[in-house]
Amino acid sequence: MTKVVICGGSGYTGIELIRILSGHSKVEISAITSEKSAGKKLAELFPHLHACGDLVYEPLNKEKLLTRADIFFLALPHGASQEAVNFFYRNGKKVIDLSADYRLRDPETYKTWYGLPHVFVSTLGKAVYGLPELYRNRIKKAALIANPGCYPTSAILGLVPALKAKLIDPESIVIDSKSGASGAGRKADIAVSFCEVNEGFKAYGIGTHRHTPEIEQELSCLAGGEITVNFTPHLLPVDRGILTTIYARMTKGADTASVLNVYRKRYAGEPFIKVHDEGVFPNIKNVRGTNLCEIGLTVNPRTKTLIVVSTIDNLVKGASGQAVQNMNIMMGFPEEEGLDRISIFP
Amino acid sequence: MTKVVICGGSGYTGIELIRILSGHSKVEISAITSEKSAGKKLAELFPHLHACGDLVYEPLNKEKLLTRADIFFLALPHGASQEAVNFFYRNGKKVIDLSADYRLRDPETYKTWYGLPHVFVSTLGKAVYGLPELYRNRIKKAALIANPGCYPTSAILGLVPALKAKLIDPESIVIDSKSGASGAGRKADIAVSFCEVNEGFKAYGIGTHRHTPEIEQELSCLAGGEITVNFTPHLLPVDRGILTTIYARMTKGADTASVLNVYRKRYAGEPFIKVHDEGVFPNIKNVRGTNLCEIGLTVNPRTKTLIVVSTIDNLVKGASGQAVQNMNIMMGFPEEEGLDRISIFP
Amino acid sequence: MTKVVICGGSGYTGIELIRILSGHSKVEISAITSEKSAGKKLAELFPHLHACGDLVYEPLNKEKLLTRADIFFLALPHGASQEAVNFFYRNGKKVIDLSADYRLRDPETYKTWYGLPHVFVSTLGKAVYGLPELYRNRIKKAALIANPGCYPTSAILGLVPALKAKLIDPESIVIDSKSGASGAGRKADIAVSFCEVNEGFKAYGIGTHRHTPEIEQELSCLAGGEITVNFTPHLLPVDRGILTTIYARMTKGADTASVLNVYRKRYAGEPFIKVHDEGVFPNIKNVRGTNLCEIGLTVNPRTKTLIVVSTIDNLVKGASGQAVQNMNIMMGFPEEEGLDRISIFP
Amino acid sequence: MTKVVICGGSGYTGIELIRILSGHSKVEISAITSEKSAGKKLAELFPHLHACGDLVYEPLNKEKLLTRADIFFLALPHGASQEAVNFFYRNGKKVIDLSADYRLRDPETYKTWYGLPHVFVSTLGKAVYGLPELYRNRIKKAALIANPGCYPTSAILGLVPALKAKLIDPESIVIDSKSGASGAGRKADIAVSFCEVNEGFKAYGIGTHRHTPEIEQELSCLAGGEITVNFTPHLLPVDRGILTTIYARMTKGADTASVLNVYRKRYAGEPFIKVHDEGVFPNIKNVRGTNLCEIGLTVNPRTKTLIVVSTIDNLVKGASGQAVQNMNIMMGFPEEEGLDRISIFP
Repeated sequence: MTKVVICGGSGYTGIELIRILSGHSKVEISAITSEKSAGKKLAELFPHLHACGDLVYEPLNKEKLLTRADIFFLALPHGASQEAVNFFYRNGKKVIDLSADYRLRDPETYKTWYGLPHVFVSTLGKAVYGLPELYRNRIKKAALIANPGCYPTSAILGLVPALKAKLIDPESIVIDSKSGASGAGRKADIAVSFCEVNEGFKAYGIGTHRHTPEIEQELSCLAGGEITVNFTPHLLPVDRGILTTIYARMTKGADTASVLNVYRKRYAGEPFIKVHDEGVFPNIKNVRGTNLCEIGLTVNPRTKTLIVVSTIDNLVKGASGQAVQNMNIMMGFPEEEGLDRISIFP
Repeated sequence: MTKVVICGGSGYTGIELIRILSGHSKVEISAITSEKSAGKKLAELFPHLHACGDLVYEPLNKEKLLTRADIFFLALPHGASQEAVNFFYRNGKKVIDLSADYRLRDPETYKTWYGLPHVFVSTLGKAVYGLPELYRNRIKKAALIANPGCYPTSAILGLVPALKAKLIDPESIVIDSKSGASGAGRKADIAVSFCEVNEGFKAYGIGTHRHTPEIEQELSCLAGGEITVNFTPHLLPVDRGILTTIYARMTKGADTASVLNVYRKRYAGEPFIKVHDEGVFPNIKNVRGTNLCEIGLTVNPRTKTLIVVSTIDNLVKGASGQAVQNMNIMMGFPEEEGLDRISIFP
Repeated sequence: MTKVVICGGSGYTGIELIRILSGHSKVEISAITSEKSAGKKLAELFPHLHACGDLVYEPLNKEKLLTRADIFFLALPHGASQEAVNFFYRNGKKVIDLSADYRLRDPETYKTWYGLPHVFVSTLGKAVYGLPELYRNRIKKAALIANPGCYPTSAILGLVPALKAKLIDPESIVIDSKSGASGAGRKADIAVSFCEVNEGFKAYGIGTHRHTPEIEQELSCLAGGEITVNFTPHLLPVDRGILTTIYARMTKGADTASVLNVYRKRYAGEPFIKVHDEGVFPNIKNVRGTNLCEIGLTVNPRTKTLIVVSTIDNLVKGASGQAVQNMNIMMGFPEEEGLDRISIFP
Repeated sequence: MTKVVICGGSGYTGIELIRILSGHSKVEISAITSEKSAGKKLAELFPHLHACGDLVYEPLNKEKLLTRADIFFLALPHGASQEAVNFFYRNGKKVIDLSADYRLRDPETYKTWYGLPHVFVSTLGKAVYGLPELYRNRIKKAALIANPGCYPTSAILGLVPALKAKLIDPESIVIDSKSGASGAGRKADIAVSFCEVNEGFKAYGIGTHRHTPEIEQELSCLAGGEITVNFTPHLLPVDRGILTTIYARMTKGADTASVLNVYRKRYAGEPFIKVHDEGVFPNIKNVRGTNLCEIGLTVNPRTKTLIVVSTIDNLVKGASGQAVQNMNIMMGFPEEEGLDRISIFP
């Protein structure tokens, strides 16, 4: 059994990693860390994980942890991850970072959007953006994975085939995303309290959300030139799930069937992408708890616009599941090991 | 007290009319109709309305009902409303039709989208589209009001000032709407059962929803030329509320403050429009039960796009509240009579 | 217009008072206080109240506030209310206290359950327990009202007629209550965050909840002897509403119809009590936003047990609505003024 | 691989069986039936199951199905199951019946509560009540399992140790249960539509619910004499989960710790029972999707009452999971095979 450590194991992505890895046949969790919960038992804080054994939170003592695993998952806050990633990576460990710290290739862009300088630019250069559908071959050889953000995963996967095939005008892209409340993280904050979120719905961070440059970075690569996008996140009164509705002007007269064909070919063999039939669109409820990205699309002939609906579970394909998928690829494990494709419904 | 009849009083818009009119100081409900609930007491079917008195559902016998009121609200299904509207209108009554039957001025467009011919084209020509913020003067003199659809109300109100001031390219409009489940009506249907809707979120009717031509009709008037729009509705797991996120390319270099200024001027004095300050965006929870339309907007300087967020309660400003607002205007009652501006929160 | 001050106006009961009083024709809010929000505009913190005017939060400076109103509503935390109540009361003001500080007549019981001594025992002796259905005549003459807790309101109103008529064994009472999340108050606490509460349900404070002695105090009065009860609160994933299911052994062979008769007689003329017909039981959704208490009951002939279901909106009849009802009675206003009996459904 | 057939595979318990069995290493689903969906693909109706392969619904042709499996799961409506169970059982197959038809040992009681005669009394005599914690040894040798109801599972498991140890007065039991909406089944019915259930909570079937005689049958066995109980079900606005709060007078002066000890001993080694520590109580959210029954309890010294809180997922331990647990026991498979103990949270 390969040993793994989870640094930052008391947030929603951390406990989701613990849940997923508990069902993984090739790895064993040797330590979980949390500064504010150090000394507490996992099962005491998270009763739904009581069957995971006797894990106890430890403080993040990097030197001591170094010898306890070969793979380090980091689910630390942005900024806090920079140094820890660098430490484990420079000491020869495989690192999968769930923060945003190593996602943006250009340190200047990082500084602009996150308000912090990037102190480990050389390590940043080694990071592979962990979207298997784009970078599977690089991930196989990587030692440092920058695990994608939840919104970017849904948005990029919804656009890859169309952009690559030059079916759409890259200057016309509108990305309207809706996320469940777990995307805001586990925190004591009136803004995420039940009575504020329940029966409510709102947009936030319009034009300013930090996932914007991450989406633009990957779409620019695909488009072969720098592009900007309109990206608007919204808060849904559900626990989990992101649904992203994408609009882009068609450059050619292709119809829905032929665009679907392009998507099916591009994603043929992908274990976690499901492209729906014409006229069928995904629902976040059907991907909950799974590592799937489900996609439905249509070409509106009246407006000559491609409309793509892309759905993931923000905590799985949008975070911890994708992190495990990346680990599986890096380590040569079966890519689907530990990851669900059937959701619990209703 | 002016007497009113509500035809089709057992759906969500019908009972919402009853609720609102029960608190209205100038009118009295003299009859409510429902084919399938004829003979049943209102309070038996809808316990939350037990304080409305001893109303009993009757079958829709138009001749008999004619003498019982001066104002007829029709909350019948599309198609079924055509004849009833014509009858009451031709017999000299004031009619407020909550169906779609008299909203589209062009009977051909109606036929294309609703699959039915319009049999009363002459009466159709008398109908005034009941959006007070656009047509208050015509509503004052009207005897037949086509009460707007819920999605169109949110979309059109979000665009009026920008289109009118030619701030945006009318060819670039994307309207991404999200509605609570009451928008689907009150019906026995697995698709709207709790376990299907709860914790779910999906798009539907993409590019084909029947509110599209209604939105396009009004926006074309404002733009001064025929336009098409991308309109995508989604189903939110909440009881009430529509939030519409609108995207359109700016034609001029105006910033957020100056666009907000245009909106504030256009809507000055409007009792039910609230334009938020820069950086503040509405939440459906804050308009629940009220007749308000709340609007927030921003100009994204990176993409030169205007993004407007427009929010209403689909059953109030999106249906029954607006119907009462129209009645108030037609009858010379105070426009706000019976209509709330403070929501119950949380 | 009578002037009122609301001390502690930024919690859920405080803003609910503001909402209700905004629609009251006899009073005007002259000040609202909040320590941590002092200086902020009401409408900025609570956009749903923007139509309430230009109220700004002030610090609780008792001396300064004294001259600004004749009636003081106190929605302060337990303990903090003791002194403020005493101050306003001793200075000749009418006081309605929504905290628990003046509810328990015996200061020893208060100390046992709240862990604090009661420092104003003489003032405590002047307080009237503000349950109009029990104490309307005393409330008329009172200057200090201890507004009942939410759970006690639902439990006591569900038992008054049966206990008074000695239909049940007072030693056998089980009170199983379920409350919406607003009952926990407005606070930054992971335990009330959306992702913890949504799709969840749990019991809490079993046998130890502080509303127990309040329920026992009033039931003991009614039973004519000291009794203890089993009271278990649960947390429902809804915004508002308490449903209390009460079980008690029948002492006589009465059937459902005859017990219903006892309830109807006892509550005849009560503007906010609705006793349902045999076989009909209330739903919290039908009382949301109203000051109603709806009651349904049955006698189980197999177990010789009376089962009562009692429902209120915890923030209205369970707090702020009842406070306004008490004010109306004290001031000689119409008892229903400002208070709804029709809920917004769905 | 052992072959299984699922008769009645399009309701919530049917699709939950498909989900669970898809992850079971020892069995293979050879047919699923549904009268109204015959001919349709599973994945078309239930997109969350698309990874289960190419199953297509068939009509329930008993003769044809007989040769296709060794184990028959029946998730048919009450009444409809009688004959099908008898047919498969009499033809030598192992049968697990999820309906109520074979749960009540006394055919007269069945007739009284279900309004139908039991036509296969001899087969009824062969059925074993499939609660492994009570009847594991009989289940091992059984060919016909009457899978328990959801409410009875939660209620009985919450009472077994206390009743068996004679800690409580069997005449004093109150069972107050709350269930998620999936318990009502998958159907087109306004009463289970989103807008009726969401933000609501109500009791139903008070004193008359059909699970009452099932609970009483098993508790009477344990108590060693016939008893009746107060059982009140309520409808929670969540997808899944039952929480049952049980009250019973203590016969002895035992405290919480000693009662907990009795429960721990009785359930030692049970793979799916978790007894919480003193002061800790379960939440339905933590058992969602799992086959667990979590129990917390306290003795209230003031009222001398034992209060037990028992929680399950109504579709898993309350239906399909328990059915698979029964199959595992009957077939000599590992008892936990295919069944989760870690829930997806949040």
